[in-house]
Amino acid sequence: MKAAFLSIGDEIVGGLTVDTNSGFIAGELRAVGVDPICGFTVRDEEDDIIRALEQALREADLVVTTGGLGPTADDLTTACVARHAGQTLVLDEPSLAFMIERFRQRGMEMPPNNRKQALFPASATVIPNPNGTAPGFICPVEVDGRTRHVACFPGVPRETRHMVMASLVPWVAARQPDTRFLSRTFSTVGLAESKLDELLAGAISPDEARVAFRASFPKMYVRLTVQGAPGEDLEARMDELEARVHARLGAAVYAVGDEGMEETLGRMLRERGLTLAVAESCTGGLIGDRLTNVPGSSEYFLLGVAAYSNGAKMGVLGVSEQTLAAHGAVSTQTAEEMAAGARRAGGADVGLSTTGIAGPGGGTADKPVGTVCIGLAWEGGTWSRRFDLGSRGREWIKATTAQMALDSVRRWLLGEL
Amino acid sequence: MKAAFLSIGDEIVGGLTVDTNSGFIAGELRAVGVDPICGFTVRDEEDDIIRALEQALREADLVVTTGGLGPTADDLTTACVARHAGQTLVLDEPSLAFMIERFRQRGMEMPPNNRKQALFPASATVIPNPNGTAPGFICPVEVDGRTRHVACFPGVPRETRHMVMASLVPWVAARQPDTRFLSRTFSTVGLAESKLDELLAGAISPDEARVAFRASFPKMYVRLTVQGAPGEDLEARMDELEARVHARLGAAVYAVGDEGMEETLGRMLRERGLTLAVAESCTGGLIGDRLTNVPGSSEYFLLGVAAYSNGAKMGVLGVSEQTLAAHGAVSTQTAEEMAAGARRAGGADVGLSTTGIAGPGGGTADKPVGTVCIGLAWEGGTWSRRFDLGSRGREWIKATTAQMALDSVRRWLLGEL
Repeated sequence: MKAAFLSIGDEIVGGLTVDTNSGFIAGELRAVGVDPICGFTVRDEEDDIIRALEQALREADLVVTTGGLGPTADDLTTACVARHAGQTLVLDEPSLAFMIERFRQRGMEMPPNNRKQALFPASATVIPNPNGTAPGFICPVEVDGRTRHVACFPGVPRETRHMVMASLVPWVAARQPDTRFLSRTFSTVGLAESKLDELLAGAISPDEARVAFRASFPKMYVRLTVQGAPGEDLEARMDELEARVHARLGAAVYAVGDEGMEETLGRMLRERGLTLAVAESCTGGLIGDRLTNVPGSSEYFLLGVAAYSNGAKMGVLGVSEQTLAAHGAVSTQTAEEMAAGARRAGGADVGLSTTGIAGPGGGTADKPVGTVCIGLAWEGGTWSRRFDLGSRGREWIKATTAQMALDSVRRWLLGEL
Repeated sequence: MKAAFLSIGDEIVGGLTVDTNSGFIAGELRAVGVDPICGFTVRDEEDDIIRALEQALREADLVVTTGGLGPTADDLTTACVARHAGQTLVLDEPSLAFMIERFRQRGMEMPPNNRKQALFPASATVIPNPNGTAPGFICPVEVDGRTRHVACFPGVPRETRHMVMASLVPWVAARQPDTRFLSRTFSTVGLAESKLDELLAGAISPDEARVAFRASFPKMYVRLTVQGAPGEDLEARMDELEARVHARLGAAVYAVGDEGMEETLGRMLRERGLTLAVAESCTGGLIGDRLTNVPGSSEYFLLGVAAYSNGAKMGVLGVSEQTLAAHGAVSTQTAEEMAAGARRAGGADVGLSTTGIAGPGGGTADKPVGTVCIGLAWEGGTWSRRFDLGSRGREWIKATTAQMALDSVRRWLLGEL
């Protein structure tokens, strides 16, 4: 099945909003065997929408539109699809009732405009939208004697993502009755996409699974998708492939599923009943920010100290003046004393620290921009390591350091530091 | 002038990469009077690229492509444009010399593949790319006896943004010799887009300037664009409009230009020779992270403390047990003691604090999720305020609190708290 994408709205064409929907949907449809072939962005103009619909339907079996389902006069998607399909618009009573109730719950009466959002092409199947007023729909369209489909979703990413996963993906899977798909995602750290590709290419053949990579810096995900006939045990096949992934990538896989390092580490700390304190120099608070993005992190994250100045390193963390004088603020020695100081000040089981030169200034021949030290301290021991990350920008250096620092605690907990 | 956008690459169509280039370029071209009318995304397939080029050139005077300028076999943009324009490819010696030198500086020999990136359609004007190996170009194409243009850029946003601002925008402006454009951006805080729109609609008429809003949460920008004939003093007109913006929006405008609150605040602190220490409870380190994204922030940001636990609030910040018992961790009283404690521990001129309930758990009837207190302390005084941000998600609450907290320091420095 080939799919084309049609993103509708003046704000998309004019560059006021970035279309993240098409890419998301394309990725999810690829996982169930669909081939995304092209995309269009058009203004809220009837002629433009119809022309793009026509062209997309010539090229693809399924056209997925986003946007233009709102209540106002410039929301034209439904009318254009109905016109192009030669169908009348019909009121869907359940959708109308849902909208009226949704407004009522907010203490408001539904404005008359919104009634338009309960109108659909006569042969369309409505897709409920639990998170908004605009339902979507899938509508069959005849093109040169063949039935093709247009699936329409609102422009709001949160609403659309839910609807796509709940309706379109199962709909596509059901239209391929002889094929089943199963996907599994692995969250990885420390290996570039090219390296992951190289390692997995030797372990998993293209016949066994599709392997896709998705980078959302500093996150890097690997997704395997297997396909087979109904009745085949895809879970068992995936389990076997997962074993090979772990064997190949080892501790570089920090989670099965799509999650951040801060979630994985938080779970590990909670399972072990351990607490953490962090001293951040070059990361400035980023590690604390990430840790506290996880609900319930107050259970294990006791204290963060952004100790940018030497005064704060000495005063709050108890780093010795001699260490700073002899080795400098960016040194493995200082990192270890910072970690120990954070642990002591926070009364935590484990102390973590970062110190480095994020640039653009401050580099020297001996310690250029991108020189970073990470330290750990625990009851009876310390660890530290120096990295040379190179000069790829201040925020990149901070983000990479934070990711490696969190990963150091994880590997220490695993006994694989 | 009408413009169409063509984003080229399997990774775009397949949803592995989101195209942010087209929207950025559309926004910049709109500011110089161009009308963006549609966009296409196509795979790295010669036929697909040619078909989209043809269609885009039928509809627009200028077609802007991104992607497909790399050194590998599936980078087809240049060849497709040359084929469609009926032109041969010609080697551009300066581009080749720049690439060879770029590799040499990295201690590498240029791979033979990259030579391809110095080939351009015979009548094209080359656009240098100081940040990468792929130059761009602008090529005239005859369509039904009229000259139209294709402008091609690489897919890497950082490279493309620079090239667009340095070459395409001036090129477009120069082709409209009777019109001059001038834009000015205002960074704002604390007002929603609808409110900004309402306030400015009463102050600036559509004939006087185009007013555009751009949200990049938690940032909100307003951009004015004026146009006029050559010789007109657009700067003077803009200065007059700017005065009206300031009169209408007051302290909600924190900077003229596009900058983060952390940059504005950093400049203000530096100008006044003041230093800052921060105690973060619900923001967990986000304020420190943002402050330290600014190069040179070590001059004024002395200490950050992420004091999640009551133990840390008492131990590191010296918040009194009585205050915590009487008013709770989320209270204006605790916020003021945290700010005073950060100031003392960091030896700073100003102390800033946040404490709140980011959710999803931890809310009560009296202090629901979204209850946030911000505190300030300085020599001889303290200030605090409670906000009810509602329950819009943990990261939203953190980001909004951080923005308001930084803004509180700014307004205090202005004497407008």
